[in-house]
Amino acid sequence: MSTTVIIGGVAGGMSTAARLRRRDENMTIIVFEASGNVSFANCGLPYYVGGVIPERSSLLLQTPESLKARFNLDVRVNHRVIAIDTANHTVTVEHNGETFTQHYDHLVLSPGARPIIPDIPGIERALTLRTVEDVDMIVDTLDNTVKSAAIIGGGFIGLELAENFRHRGLEVTLIERAPHILAPLDEEMAGIVTKHMRDNGVNILTNANTTSIEDNTLTLNTGEVVPADIVIAAIGVTPENTLAREAGIELGARGGIKVDDQLRTSAPDVFALGDAAEKRDAISGADTLIPLAQTANRHGRLVADIITGRDVHRLSTQGTAIVGVFGLAAATVGWNERRARAEGKDVRIVHVHPADHAGYYPGATQVHLKLVIDAATDAILGAQAVGENGVDKRIDVIATAMRAGLTASDLTDLELAYSPQYGSAKDPVNIAGMVADNRINSEQSVQWHEIPAAIAAGTQLIDVRTPSEYAAGTIDGARNIPVDELREHLDEISNDAIVFCQVGLRGHVASTLLQGHGITVKNLDGGYLSYYHSTLI
Amino acid sequence: MSTTVIIGGVAGGMSTAARLRRRDENMTIIVFEASGNVSFANCGLPYYVGGVIPERSSLLLQTPESLKARFNLDVRVNHRVIAIDTANHTVTVEHNGETFTQHYDHLVLSPGARPIIPDIPGIERALTLRTVEDVDMIVDTLDNTVKSAAIIGGGFIGLELAENFRHRGLEVTLIERAPHILAPLDEEMAGIVTKHMRDNGVNILTNANTTSIEDNTLTLNTGEVVPADIVIAAIGVTPENTLAREAGIELGARGGIKVDDQLRTSAPDVFALGDAAEKRDAISGADTLIPLAQTANRHGRLVADIITGRDVHRLSTQGTAIVGVFGLAAATVGWNERRARAEGKDVRIVHVHPADHAGYYPGATQVHLKLVIDAATDAILGAQAVGENGVDKRIDVIATAMRAGLTASDLTDLELAYSPQYGSAKDPVNIAGMVADNRINSEQSVQWHEIPAAIAAGTQLIDVRTPSEYAAGTIDGARNIPVDELREHLDEISNDAIVFCQVGLRGHVASTLLQGHGITVKNLDGGYLSYYHSTLI
Repeated sequence: MSTTVIIGGVAGGMSTAARLRRRDENMTIIVFEASGNVSFANCGLPYYVGGVIPERSSLLLQTPESLKARFNLDVRVNHRVIAIDTANHTVTVEHNGETFTQHYDHLVLSPGARPIIPDIPGIERALTLRTVEDVDMIVDTLDNTVKSAAIIGGGFIGLELAENFRHRGLEVTLIERAPHILAPLDEEMAGIVTKHMRDNGVNILTNANTTSIEDNTLTLNTGEVVPADIVIAAIGVTPENTLAREAGIELGARGGIKVDDQLRTSAPDVFALGDAAEKRDAISGADTLIPLAQTANRHGRLVADIITGRDVHRLSTQGTAIVGVFGLAAATVGWNERRARAEGKDVRIVHVHPADHAGYYPGATQVHLKLVIDAATDAILGAQAVGENGVDKRIDVIATAMRAGLTASDLTDLELAYSPQYGSAKDPVNIAGMVADNRINSEQSVQWHEIPAAIAAGTQLIDVRTPSEYAAGTIDGARNIPVDELREHLDEISNDAIVFCQVGLRGHVASTLLQGHGITVKNLDGGYLSYYHSTLI
Repeated sequence: MSTTVIIGGVAGGMSTAARLRRRDENMTIIVFEASGNVSFANCGLPYYVGGVIPERSSLLLQTPESLKARFNLDVRVNHRVIAIDTANHTVTVEHNGETFTQHYDHLVLSPGARPIIPDIPGIERALTLRTVEDVDMIVDTLDNTVKSAAIIGGGFIGLELAENFRHRGLEVTLIERAPHILAPLDEEMAGIVTKHMRDNGVNILTNANTTSIEDNTLTLNTGEVVPADIVIAAIGVTPENTLAREAGIELGARGGIKVDDQLRTSAPDVFALGDAAEKRDAISGADTLIPLAQTANRHGRLVADIITGRDVHRLSTQGTAIVGVFGLAAATVGWNERRARAEGKDVRIVHVHPADHAGYYPGATQVHLKLVIDAATDAILGAQAVGENGVDKRIDVIATAMRAGLTASDLTDLELAYSPQYGSAKDPVNIAGMVADNRINSEQSVQWHEIPAAIAAGTQLIDVRTPSEYAAGTIDGARNIPVDELREHLDEISNDAIVFCQVGLRGHVASTLLQGHGITVKNLDGGYLSYYHSTLI
C-alpha cells in the first residue's frame, strides 16, 4: 500500500489529495499544512476584510474532519515540513515543537508562494494577505482608531484590498512604483481602472517609491507623506522554495521549483505544482511563474492522475486572470503589448469599445477590448478587457480561441449566443476579429502612442465625430469634419492625414471612404477613447 | 460603375450594403425593403410590447436618410420587389401601386422569413411578430379591454412575448404542441424553464393542439377553453422564397434558397443570405435552416466581400442561441440529445450543476449545463445551459471550443478567468470536461431516463446525500446511505446498484470509493436534480 505525502493543503494540494483518493481507495494520503487551515478560499480573503463576505466560516471550505469522512484523508494542520530527504524518501515534520519523520512513496510539493516584503525602514508594521491568519490579523487591526490605509503595490490583491478598505470607510492610498497600476495590462487599459478607482475615492500614486514607514504615516521618495494607520505590503509573491532548495531539488531562474511536463521535479518521485512551481508560458514555451488558483487546481488533478498511472501531461499556461474593483472588471490573457514588443514581436494592435449587449436594450455598458496580434502570423498573443459587464465572457472566449490556435481574424466567425440582454448580433469579440481582418486587408492605422509624433510632424488630424462630440474634447490641433459630410470636403484632406472618431468605427468608414477617392489616410485605432484612456494613468 | 441591388433591408441586407460601400466607394447600391422600416431591431420587438424597451424609436437603428448620409446608399422602404428576371439582370419593383424595373449587376436576396400561420378556424384574429408594423399592431390591440393572451408556440418568440405580456399584467397561456417547450433543448433542460415560467404566472400547456379560435377564447383538442383576448401565432418561420421560386432559382427541400459556400444561388450573379437562405449544419455538413441574426449579419459582410472580389467562404452554422425569460437564461449550441440520437450517434451525456461563481462569494446561482458528446470520438456535438447568470458565457466558450475542434475532455484544460465574483477555480465548463474525461476512463453512469427501467428491474438505488436532503424528496424506492458513511456499509451494496446525490459529484465520489472496494455501481449523471428537472415539463 503506497503512501503519498502532500506538502500544502490549499488549492493544488487539496485537489491532489481528493483526486488521489478517487483514483485509489487504498493509498495512504497524508497532507501537511503549516498554517491552521486547509482548503480555504484564498481568493475570497480581501472580501472578508470589507464585509462583502460577511461570515469568516464562508472562507473555510473544508476541515481535516470533513476530509477524513469524505475522502479518508489524513490532513494535519499546523504541521510544518522542515526537511526532505530525497534519497531516503522521508520528510521531517515539526508540530507543537516536536519533530518526526514520515516516509513517502510519492511526495507532492504544493507549499504556495509567500508575499515579497520590500526592504523599507518600518516595514515590520506592514501586513500581508495570503492566509486566514493574515486576514484575521488585518481585521483585528482595523479597530475604531484606524482611519487610513496605505497599500504598497497596485496588483490584484492591492486593488481588491483598496476597494474593501473603502467599503469600511477608510481613507485609502495605493502606491505603485511603476508608471501605472495593474502590470498585466497596458497603460491605456489600466488607465480606465485607475480613473474608476479614483472616482471611488482611492488615492492612486504612481511612479512612487515608499522610503519609510512611520507610526501612522508612510513617506514617499517625492517627500509626500501619506496617512497610513494600517500598511499593506502587496507588491507580489515569490515561490515558497526553501524546502526544495535545501533538499537539493532544482530551481528555475526566478526561484520556482523546476518541473517537467508531468510535474516531476529533479528528485525521484517528487512532484511540484501551484504557485511554488514553474509553469510553461503558452506563447513562448519558456519557463515562467504564473501564480493562479485555477492552474494549481488543474495541476493537482493532473499530478494525482500521473501518480496513479495515467500518462497525461500538463498544457502550457496562458495566464488568464480577472480582477473586479467597484463594479468594474479588468481581465487579461496571454501577453500584453509591452511584453510582446519586449520579446521582439512585430505586433498588430486592435482596440474596440462596443456595448456588452445590444444598445437598444436598456443597461448596455461598454466593453473596452484590446487584442495583441502577431503581425506575421495573425496569431493572438494576448487580450485585455475592461468594463462593467461581460468582460469575463469575452476574455474566456478569446482564451479558448487562443488555446485552440484560432487566429485573430478567426474571431470574426465565432458564433456566439445573441439575444438583446446577453450580446449583440456582432459580438465585441467578432468586432475585434473584423477590425483585425480589415487591418490585414485594407485599413491603415495608428496607435494612440503614435499621436504625439504625428502632431510634431505636422500631420493633419481630422476628428470625424459630430460637432458636439468634438466640442466636448478632442486631440489638440484636430479639425472637425463629421463623417457624414466628408464627401463634400475631399479636397481639404491631405494624403497622410489621420482620422479618428470616438471608438474607431466611424474612423474606419471615413478611411475607406477616402481610400475610395484616392486619399490614403490612417485611422486611429480605438478612436479618441483609447487616446483619452492613456491620459488617465 | 456596377450596381448591386439588395432585396431586404434588415440584418443581412443592411450588413451587405454597409460593407459594400466600405469596400467600394463608387458602386451604386440600392436596397428595396417591402416594409416601412430598414435596419430595425427585430430581436428587441417583444421587449417593446412589455415596455422593457420603453421608446419605439429605440427599435429604429437607421433610416434611409441616415444611411444616405453615412454610406451613400439608395435605400427605399415600402418598395416590394415582385419579380426577378435572372436572364436580363433586372428586378420589377412595386411602390405606391406603380411598378418599375431596375437593372442589377449583382443581386442579393435577403428577404428574411415569414411566420407560419397554422390552419385553424378563427386564425385570422391571430397576430404575429416579425416587423415593426407587427409590433405596432400588437401594442394597438392591447387596450384596456384585453385581459388575457394566448400564445400558440413555445419557441423563443413565444416565450419572450409570454414574459412581456405578464409585464403588462395579462393572464397568459402558452400552448405547445410538443411534449415540452423550447424544442432546441432536451426535456429535462426545458423543464427548468417551464417551472420558472409557471412560477412567474404563465400557464403552460404542452401536448396541446389548438382546434379553434373564438372571439375571446381558444379551444384545445382536450376540450379545454383558454382565455384569449389576444392571440399570437408563434409556431415558427418559413423562408420567404416566393420571389426566388418564381424566378426559377433553386430551393432546398425545406424551402430555403439553395446557396453554395460563397452564398451564390443557382442564378448567375444572384446571392442569398439570412433567414431566406439555407445554411450548412456544423455537425453533419447537411443543408439546414437556422434563422439567426448573427449569421445573417456575418453573411452580409461576407457576400459584400465576395462581390467586391475577395475569395472568402462561409463557415458552417452551429446554431448558437439564447433566450431570457423572467431573469432565467436558456442557451444552446449544436445538436441536442434527441437530435443526436435521431441521427444515429452513440452519445455520451454529461449534466453538471455548479455555481456560476465561487460559492463562498455572495450571490452565486446554479448553471445547469449539459454536454452531448460523440462517444466514438469525444467530439462535442452540442451543449445546453440554463441558469440566472453566466449561461451565455459558458455556451459561448463551448461554441468556440466546438468551432475550433476541441473535444469534450479538452474542456478540462481551458484556462478561464477566475476571481470569486466572476467564476470558480474550476469553472462549470472545466467541470463538464472533467466529468466527460471520467466517463471515458473510469466511471459508469446512467441517465435520468434510464431510472424507470432500473426500478422495474429491481436495481438497488442508493441516495448518498444527507438524511435531510433525502427526506426532502428522493427517487421512489431509494435507500439513504450518506457518502461519508459508505465505507461502513460496503456489505450492504450490490454490484449493479445505482448511486446518486444532488448533482452527481458525491455520487462520483461514492462510485469511485465503491469501485476501490470491488463493487461496480453506476452514478446517476446530473444527480437527483436532472431527474427532478425531467418531471417538470
